Amino acid sequence: MLRIGLLGCGRIGQVHARSIRALEGATVAAVADAMPAAAEALAADTGAEVRDVATILQADDIDAVVIGTPTDSHFDQIMGAAKAGKAIFCEKPVDMSVDNIRACMDAVGEAGVPFLTGFNRRFDPNFARLRARIRAGDIGAVELAAITSRDPAPPPVSYIARSGGLFRDMMIHDFDMARFLMGEEFIRLHAVGSALVDPAIGEAGDVDTAAVILTTASGRICQISNSRRAAYGYDQRIEVHGQKGMLRAENQLETTVEIATETGFARDPAQHFFLERYGAAYLAEMRAFVEAVTSGTAPDPGIEDGLRAQILADAATLSRETGRPIDLPGA
Amino acid sequence: MLRIGLLGCGRIGQVHARSIRALEGATVAAVADAMPAAAEALAADTGAEVRDVATILQADDIDAVVIGTPTDSHFDQIMGAAKAGKAIFCEKPVDMSVDNIRACMDAVGEAGVPFLTGFNRRFDPNFARLRARIRAGDIGAVELAAITSRDPAPPPVSYIARSGGLFRDMMIHDFDMARFLMGEEFIRLHAVGSALVDPAIGEAGDVDTAAVILTTASGRICQISNSRRAAYGYDQRIEVHGQKGMLRAENQLETTVEIATETGFARDPAQHFFLERYGAAYLAEMRAFVEAVTSGTAPDPGIEDGLRAQILADAATLSRETGRPIDLPGA
Amino acid sequence: MLRIGLLGCGRIGQVHARSIRALEGATVAAVADAMPAAAEALAADTGAEVRDVATILQADDIDAVVIGTPTDSHFDQIMGAAKAGKAIFCEKPVDMSVDNIRACMDAVGEAGVPFLTGFNRRFDPNFARLRARIRAGDIGAVELAAITSRDPAPPPVSYIARSGGLFRDMMIHDFDMARFLMGEEFIRLHAVGSALVDPAIGEAGDVDTAAVILTTASGRICQISNSRRAAYGYDQRIEVHGQKGMLRAENQLETTVEIATETGFARDPAQHFFLERYGAAYLAEMRAFVEAVTSGTAPDPGIEDGLRAQILADAATLSRETGRPIDLPGA
Amino acid sequence: MLRIGLLGCGRIGQVHARSIRALEGATVAAVADAMPAAAEALAADTGAEVRDVATILQADDIDAVVIGTPTDSHFDQIMGAAKAGKAIFCEKPVDMSVDNIRACMDAVGEAGVPFLTGFNRRFDPNFARLRARIRAGDIGAVELAAITSRDPAPPPVSYIARSGGLFRDMMIHDFDMARFLMGEEFIRLHAVGSALVDPAIGEAGDVDTAAVILTTASGRICQISNSRRAAYGYDQRIEVHGQKGMLRAENQLETTVEIATETGFARDPAQHFFLERYGAAYLAEMRAFVEAVTSGTAPDPGIEDGLRAQILADAATLSRETGRPIDLPGA
Repeated sequence: MLRIGLLGCGRIGQVHARSIRALEGATVAAVADAMPAAAEALAADTGAEVRDVATILQADDIDAVVIGTPTDSHFDQIMGAAKAGKAIFCEKPVDMSVDNIRACMDAVGEAGVPFLTGFNRRFDPNFARLRARIRAGDIGAVELAAITSRDPAPPPVSYIARSGGLFRDMMIHDFDMARFLMGEEFIRLHAVGSALVDPAIGEAGDVDTAAVILTTASGRICQISNSRRAAYGYDQRIEVHGQKGMLRAENQLETTVEIATETGFARDPAQHFFLERYGAAYLAEMRAFVEAVTSGTAPDPGIEDGLRAQILADAATLSRETGRPIDLPGA
Repeated sequence: MLRIGLLGCGRIGQVHARSIRALEGATVAAVADAMPAAAEALAADTGAEVRDVATILQADDIDAVVIGTPTDSHFDQIMGAAKAGKAIFCEKPVDMSVDNIRACMDAVGEAGVPFLTGFNRRFDPNFARLRARIRAGDIGAVELAAITSRDPAPPPVSYIARSGGLFRDMMIHDFDMARFLMGEEFIRLHAVGSALVDPAIGEAGDVDTAAVILTTASGRICQISNSRRAAYGYDQRIEVHGQKGMLRAENQLETTVEIATETGFARDPAQHFFLERYGAAYLAEMRAFVEAVTSGTAPDPGIEDGLRAQILADAATLSRETGRPIDLPGA
Repeated sequence: MLRIGLLGCGRIGQVHARSIRALEGATVAAVADAMPAAAEALAADTGAEVRDVATILQADDIDAVVIGTPTDSHFDQIMGAAKAGKAIFCEKPVDMSVDNIRACMDAVGEAGVPFLTGFNRRFDPNFARLRARIRAGDIGAVELAAITSRDPAPPPVSYIARSGGLFRDMMIHDFDMARFLMGEEFIRLHAVGSALVDPAIGEAGDVDTAAVILTTASGRICQISNSRRAAYGYDQRIEVHGQKGMLRAENQLETTVEIATETGFARDPAQHFFLERYGAAYLAEMRAFVEAVTSGTAPDPGIEDGLRAQILADAATLSRETGRPIDLPGA
Repeated sequence: MLRIGLLGCGRIGQVHARSIRALEGATVAAVADAMPAAAEALAADTGAEVRDVATILQADDIDAVVIGTPTDSHFDQIMGAAKAGKAIFCEKPVDMSVDNIRACMDAVGEAGVPFLTGFNRRFDPNFARLRARIRAGDIGAVELAAITSRDPAPPPVSYIARSGGLFRDMMIHDFDMARFLMGEEFIRLHAVGSALVDPAIGEAGDVDTAAVILTTASGRICQISNSRRAAYGYDQRIEVHGQKGMLRAENQLETTVEIATETGFARDPAQHFFLERYGAAYLAEMRAFVEAVTSGTAPDPGIEDGLRAQILADAATLSRETGRPIDLPGA
């Protein structure tokens, strides 16, 4: 039984607590949150103890930590957990600073603790299946990929202002997905972006509509596009074209019901809420973490995946600001 | 070059004229119609001569006739054409009377002339492909079929009153399709029907909504349903279930365009008009006739197919009126 | 907090236990099973006490029973629970004998206890949504419905032999769905069936492939078809045609992934396992029971729905055996 | 009756001849081809006279020319036809040189003759409908478009070598489509490309896999991707995302047949051949030309559209070669 300390009891912490409860091999042993009421509520739900972060990190009865605190707390908690020899599950982004992530990577490496970066979309059954079919050779060598990601509605501008920008806050998931699908690192990237959804987002220095082209050394190409708004739900699609064919994963609609009337055939919107859309993914992600830690294999995606996605997000931000393609550092 | 005399220059006659013009191996040599203006208009379009029916039947320069006149003229024209040794393409139904069809069958058989019954749907590329895959064994032995056929809107009640009723006028296509798909004759049938679309149809002694179950000697089952109305277009679908899987042919929509908005994902209505929906089928049907006559092979479907569909339509009419299943005459 | 006694700890009992645990307003207080090991295993999972059925029925600390025992135990347990004033959730079928169901209905009525018949498919989010749209008038008056239900593979012949036959064991779900969709009772039914999947099923006196037509007093028509085998998964579809359009609920596929290769575009099979396909339905069903009992409203579907479905199943069995349509008793 | 002289009797000339024959208001009066046999064959089919190009351009009985000759003949023929006051339908590309197109544009403008550039895809019923819905405001302001275009198989390398390269030979259609959809000119473009399908294409200095990002002054973004190969047919899709939703046009498959087996649900490949996929588009294009000339309105797309697409193709070629984004000349 893996005994887990949960750092952060907000929305994502609650998601992870629910996943842990649904697994046989793990339990939420302790919870911590800067807001005592949040910690107490989650403790009541899970039967865990409320402790502070430092106590959890030092506790002998805690095997692993799940970090779901605000991003600016990640660094200290990772460093502390690594030092204390705890296995670490950390929500994305690992840190807003690539240098900090490198420091964490060193600490984690030296401590030899397992580390999983919370790129939940890799665990979506649809996307995971698509990638397994690529690996199985079903479409031969990959040539072109296209990732489309649109949120149902933009977050508040106040959130945008401290988010690090669309490329680091939203498209980072797609950068990780691009690496996951492509099977080869990117060497060059060009990004464009505009504030079309809400001028206030532009005034805050960010974009809400963006597209990126990435290329690999062997010439494979990946297109990504993002929008902060989609009238028809949470739009999450991937398409990969190869030598022998194409793989696509379409949106999950609310139901399978179709109505035909004089205006035609109509189906439901896409599932709107990320917790619904990625519910199965969050559970599979936690299962993968628990199984990896329990069996002594390295969790995947690891901290280096967190680093590489952040490097791509930084490069895209710079490319969009300067209007120039950016050469990426080698693997 | 097969020289064809076209009997009947109404809507369906014009369709056949257009098909013949598009084929290399045939030409419309002469046209006839009870309405001189209709014959002249089609003659102008095709470059054919206007003649009367008797003259066409006797003409040495005519190899084949295409009969698209009202149903009550078919019998005399078939008998005349058979006697004159012309190849015959006859619109469905061959005749409203099974006895008359048997008489035609005898005459055609004795004369040894080729005969094609105009069940155009067999030539629809979708349905033809579906049936070819059944024959290729793609779903193994057929077990269950379901045919759905709905017109966009009912014809005038005046038409209904002299149509022979829904089973003979509309479902006759589906009876032929059922035979085409099943690969075994039916031995028993049960039909139900109601006037739900328009009470005036019920007052005229007919139904506008109907369903039939047919069974074969080996126990295969076919379900048919018809409605005289479909808000979303001309609904024409078939589904066949077998040992190793299921084949379906879906509706053809007006375009491939899909719109996603806050109410969901919407596509176009089904093609509304039978000449659009079955345009390719009419052309393929005429090509099959011309090729069969030219190459000396028997056209398919032949006159016996016209007879068998009529027997099923009569049985369904009786079953609906009496509320009893009907045992069908043996093959 | 509704305290529930679970009678029967087999596969379906475990499903219900899991649902109850996921709900906030209910708890599994006690479990009983003829096999002590099964009861103990489920007790360990849920934290419930193991008791015998009689003790549960008499216990003051039990508010409701969930009956998931073999069908021939239902009658005594329902009578006992009604007498003891417990709310009752009973798996379908309520009983194989219509007379027994009527006796239960009387007992339940006299005792005034809430009763839910476990027709789980009514709670499937797709089917529930489709029916809500009918009720909302989205397709106007209902005219024609078609229900298709195919199991992935037949059960063992030993099961078939004591199942009551396909109409009572499998199609009973579709009879309930037909009533749920139609909004009007059926007055007449005609059933056909064959043993095409496995001759041994025919030798056991049953069929594995069947179709039924049902009609209502106002002339509405419902078609049902069943097969005990579907190569491509658990095939569960409904279609309802009305004055203003058509509603359909399609199968849920394993993932949304599509592959395009030289043979065309291919998607996954339908979900194979009923616990996966109807997982959400089982949870929604239990929630509806708990909410109805807690709020004092009548659960829906009630015991009369169990009775009416059984009457249809009996009539279909008789119709198939005699080859005659059956007039159904009035509402 | 518009009397047309057809210049070029190869594959595309034959397509246009067929379209003209199907129209009521036009006729092929004369044909010319460098290969006498080709001209004679088409003359026999259409009843037209064989003449040489110069004779056609000077003839009083010719109202319009359709130019389907090799690209390097276009310039002289356009200049000649403009001078002679003939209406002009010219296949894309108008010319490989932007300067030449400008010269043609001047000549056409001075002569005041109608000119249609043969961007057939604008006339595809699916794409035309999609664009009409954009113009009708169905998705509000356009924000992001994605155009996917993949040929079933690459042309011979010998063709590639003198084609002007993928951006001018293949993607030029997509550049025109991008302008057609976007409703605003592009100001900047970045292109990448690789030879992944066939190394010989790379050795010939061209690419077979490419992606482009284009942006407009107001910040709208368009993504295009091309491949010279698609195992599953001729892949032609567009998607436009806007304020109020998304419009998509999917591929046209060979039939509507779907098969479900133990591996899942499979549909046909996309139509493989461009004459099948765009058959309706070629006819609609010629109808638009004939109607515009007959009614005295300006054909659309005009020669300026040919110019702008060529400018984009040149810029993409340069961008791919230099690795830099290219600023486009203003409107």
